[in-house]
Amino acid sequence: MVIFMIQTNGKAPSIGSREIFKMRQANLDKVAAHANGMARVMMNPRREWLKHFMIFDTTGRDGMQTYKAFANPNVPRTESKKRVITELAGWGVPAIEVGYPGASTAENQVARAIVEFRNKAGLETVLVGLSMTIPEHVKIAKEVGMDEIHIFSSGSVPHAWVKFGKMPHELTGDVVETVKFARSIGFEKILVSLEDAFSADPDHLVEVALRCADAAKDAEFRYNIPDTIGVATPEHAFALTSFMIDKTGIPLDVHFHNDSGLAAHHTVVAACAAAEKGQAIRGQTTINGLGERTGNAALHLVLKELHQFWRVVPKDVKGKTLELNRLFEISRFVANLAGIPIPANAPAIGEDSSVHNSGPHANGYMKSLEMGRKSSIYVPENPRTYGNKERVETGPLAGKSNTIVKMKQFGIDVKHPKIKSRMDEIAENDKSISASRHVSDAEFILNAFEIIMGKQCGVLKIDERDIEIIMGGNWPPRARVKIEINGEEKFGEAMGNGPVNAVISAITNAIGQESLKFANYDNHSLGTGSDATAEVELVLENGCGPIRTSCIGPNTTIIAIEAYAQAFNALEALKQLRALSRE
Amino acid sequence: MVIFMIQTNGKAPSIGSREIFKMRQANLDKVAAHANGMARVMMNPRREWLKHFMIFDTTGRDGMQTYKAFANPNVPRTESKKRVITELAGWGVPAIEVGYPGASTAENQVARAIVEFRNKAGLETVLVGLSMTIPEHVKIAKEVGMDEIHIFSSGSVPHAWVKFGKMPHELTGDVVETVKFARSIGFEKILVSLEDAFSADPDHLVEVALRCADAAKDAEFRYNIPDTIGVATPEHAFALTSFMIDKTGIPLDVHFHNDSGLAAHHTVVAACAAAEKGQAIRGQTTINGLGERTGNAALHLVLKELHQFWRVVPKDVKGKTLELNRLFEISRFVANLAGIPIPANAPAIGEDSSVHNSGPHANGYMKSLEMGRKSSIYVPENPRTYGNKERVETGPLAGKSNTIVKMKQFGIDVKHPKIKSRMDEIAENDKSISASRHVSDAEFILNAFEIIMGKQCGVLKIDERDIEIIMGGNWPPRARVKIEINGEEKFGEAMGNGPVNAVISAITNAIGQESLKFANYDNHSLGTGSDATAEVELVLENGCGPIRTSCIGPNTTIIAIEAYAQAFNALEALKQLRALSRE
Repeated sequence: MVIFMIQTNGKAPSIGSREIFKMRQANLDKVAAHANGMARVMMNPRREWLKHFMIFDTTGRDGMQTYKAFANPNVPRTESKKRVITELAGWGVPAIEVGYPGASTAENQVARAIVEFRNKAGLETVLVGLSMTIPEHVKIAKEVGMDEIHIFSSGSVPHAWVKFGKMPHELTGDVVETVKFARSIGFEKILVSLEDAFSADPDHLVEVALRCADAAKDAEFRYNIPDTIGVATPEHAFALTSFMIDKTGIPLDVHFHNDSGLAAHHTVVAACAAAEKGQAIRGQTTINGLGERTGNAALHLVLKELHQFWRVVPKDVKGKTLELNRLFEISRFVANLAGIPIPANAPAIGEDSSVHNSGPHANGYMKSLEMGRKSSIYVPENPRTYGNKERVETGPLAGKSNTIVKMKQFGIDVKHPKIKSRMDEIAENDKSISASRHVSDAEFILNAFEIIMGKQCGVLKIDERDIEIIMGGNWPPRARVKIEINGEEKFGEAMGNGPVNAVISAITNAIGQESLKFANYDNHSLGTGSDATAEVELVLENGCGPIRTSCIGPNTTIIAIEAYAQAFNALEALKQLRALSRE
Repeated sequence: MVIFMIQTNGKAPSIGSREIFKMRQANLDKVAAHANGMARVMMNPRREWLKHFMIFDTTGRDGMQTYKAFANPNVPRTESKKRVITELAGWGVPAIEVGYPGASTAENQVARAIVEFRNKAGLETVLVGLSMTIPEHVKIAKEVGMDEIHIFSSGSVPHAWVKFGKMPHELTGDVVETVKFARSIGFEKILVSLEDAFSADPDHLVEVALRCADAAKDAEFRYNIPDTIGVATPEHAFALTSFMIDKTGIPLDVHFHNDSGLAAHHTVVAACAAAEKGQAIRGQTTINGLGERTGNAALHLVLKELHQFWRVVPKDVKGKTLELNRLFEISRFVANLAGIPIPANAPAIGEDSSVHNSGPHANGYMKSLEMGRKSSIYVPENPRTYGNKERVETGPLAGKSNTIVKMKQFGIDVKHPKIKSRMDEIAENDKSISASRHVSDAEFILNAFEIIMGKQCGVLKIDERDIEIIMGGNWPPRARVKIEINGEEKFGEAMGNGPVNAVISAITNAIGQESLKFANYDNHSLGTGSDATAEVELVLENGCGPIRTSCIGPNTTIIAIEAYAQAFNALEALKQLRALSRE
């Protein structure tokens, strides 16, 4: 075999950043010809093959390596992993990496639990266990019931040298022997990865892949090209994929990291390259792009590109089209367990990723719907595809269209003369307030109510001087409140885990309405220092809700109370406005 | 001119999603040949031209359209905009879109203020004002002192029809006339955009560009191809850029939205396409990818691709290389003003984007540094390039290397025999705790201290039963505390804006150390409901800090106190461990 570029003669190879950069460039040069026609392929990929793109989820393995993720003390890590994987298996993800069963007792146990779940549920999900070239670890993976073993070693000079003090070819024997061993103990699916494949000599990758395929005998053998450190370009991804298929014909996995922001795109590019050769790859992805450093290829971005560009939806484990419209909900399920929020503007799954905020966009949305379209001309495709939705919000750059659409979103028909005649005023008022701060849904409704009805909707009144909260000593925080509801004074008392909990419970007790459901409370700092301004977002739900509100102030307890009262009153206002609009 | 595909004969054109999809495909087909050789170009772009890539920042215009952004009531929107733009101008961004001066008095005033700042600072930043094809608005832009006018109209059938009830060519006259008017009142730089260019007939774009260039006479004229709704593919971006340059020779701007997650990549692709033709484009970007819906092309991702793939850094307004290493800090500056956080794993600028969390990665980091490298073999390039940094953290998947490196990061030399002999125990202990929850820096240090010194570092002791907090009536929250410091009882009292502020002040008063600096306090909910678990992250800073800690519990006030005590004690432990390691 050929060792690329570096002659060590027993000495350490040169692995400075510049040398590695050059080495990678030279490795790309070796495969560059395979990117010929890439643009043509990407503009019109072979959809019949692209449809067979297989999702290999590694949220439960590489995703668990995300810093600070899955660290909620109320949910053990193993439990989180189990919940994530069973959710994904239930959705129909065909292959799922469960972890490294040989690494620890915990990993071992959770792998067993997942196998058990899968078997009971009668799913055909392929469960994959990771292992270094250590036969004992491979054996454990088999014992816990893994269907597929994922054996990895180092592929590039810097990785082989720094981690093992060896050149890559000196590691090949171990890899081949481990594959043989895996087959000998009954693994029928074997996957091999040489880390840092994009800095590795492509000829070396081919040699290892062929020798391993040979060692795997009649097992289903796959070869993975992992971009462990996130150095690939799309063109490199395309070229190396094509090269490996041309030279080996072995089915490929790809595994990209997001250091340049392109992990998902690389995955799609590799899928198109393979499709051109009449092959379908498996793309190793994670939910929400979790994973070491900048994360792995995010499944939502892979699905978004495939569907938006070419109307392709991958298949689930049963060979049916994956239910794309569950993506929004599943992404949130994982985000909550991981404690890593989804950015509001994330493509496909961001809560506000299809919000129209400025006047012209809202106007375009409104007119689009009036013309009978299901989504507006300001989105590339209907966000419902992913279980998300398009909506209009008001704000400092809004026009009247924003207000009209927002009223409609709340079920208020703006055609009623009493409402129609005040629309300009409502819009102007909203715009003017939001020049200096965010106007919550509750405040929007309350302001509209005041303008339309000519009076405030102050059903619930709470004076902060009528609140008493005491913390200290051996008792949990306790609160006493006096409120006024429809002009009538009421009293409430409660204890709680914290001051907010105590006072909200006390108010709820004082109101005494069974139908009132408190849906959500969130509190985060806007600034720094212990007197930081905090923003409370509170969602109240009853027959007429949910409705959101947020209040800003230095004392989180006080603003929680204000937000509660505002949400409560807004629900009443909403009820009355809806009734009016239907008169 | 040719109107593509759609014959209206006075009737409404067909603008269903399917028709638009087909229309876009046909528009791509028209320019597809211009993507020939794209892979070759992208693998080896003409760096001499790529270096002239110009940054056109639109954070102050499109970025301000981000839903809920810049809504902090303590900082008026206009003030935020001014701060963002002056910061970027100071950094050396050569062209900045200031807003739409004709839209409102507020926009007008802030534009004037920015012009004044720029002039006083003696900067040559080109300030750009947006305008529809409304001469009065163009005039206002001139009056407030804009250097360049950015005139926009609709380019595609769906946009022209839905917004104006016209076909695109029916809007051309207005665009040309507005350009003429702009030139006539003295604009020497003119930019024209036809919205939704990627769904527009490319021949139409060429015609409008040429007619406008003609109307602009001797002014510096640029033409922008905006992907308003985020439908472009990289190949389409490449092809349309090449096509426009071939057909018009007019200098181009590009403006992409991130609906498919590729806005930044499209920008880089367009830059490479132009470079191949011996042209440099201006890329319209925003800090942190702010902007309508999923946002605009994120500057950090554009800079990351240019540098990581080809070692290219764009020039600043003075023609010098832009200071890339300020990117981390500037991104944070804008994120804080916008109130939109940077995801921790964001490429280049994410706080944790170069954290090594798992054992093998930490080991690779440690060995890389021992071999004299400045960064590890697990990052594609040194994060310092962007003002960020690589670091190792401990956690459930950590090995001993993680602990060794983390101790070093805290300035503790692990070679000291007393420390070295306990490293295994420290690592095991840390790994075992972090199986169920995150271990903060403070806790890490305190645990190491206990293992090395054989005793707890409990300088400051606070029993929550010795805390009394009262809220209610007319007074601000007030707190009384009894603490124990080095075995001595001390008392403190304070009032504060909120309960946390009051109690932290009371404790600080009781401690009575001048040198103690409280750096940061953050508090966010982990779950939902008013008894949600909250996580407090607290940073204390004195000669030996800062040190971070986080405590989790249902009562935010109590956990803030716990976190404070933990951070205080960890600072003391750190001081002693450092001293020991230098013995």
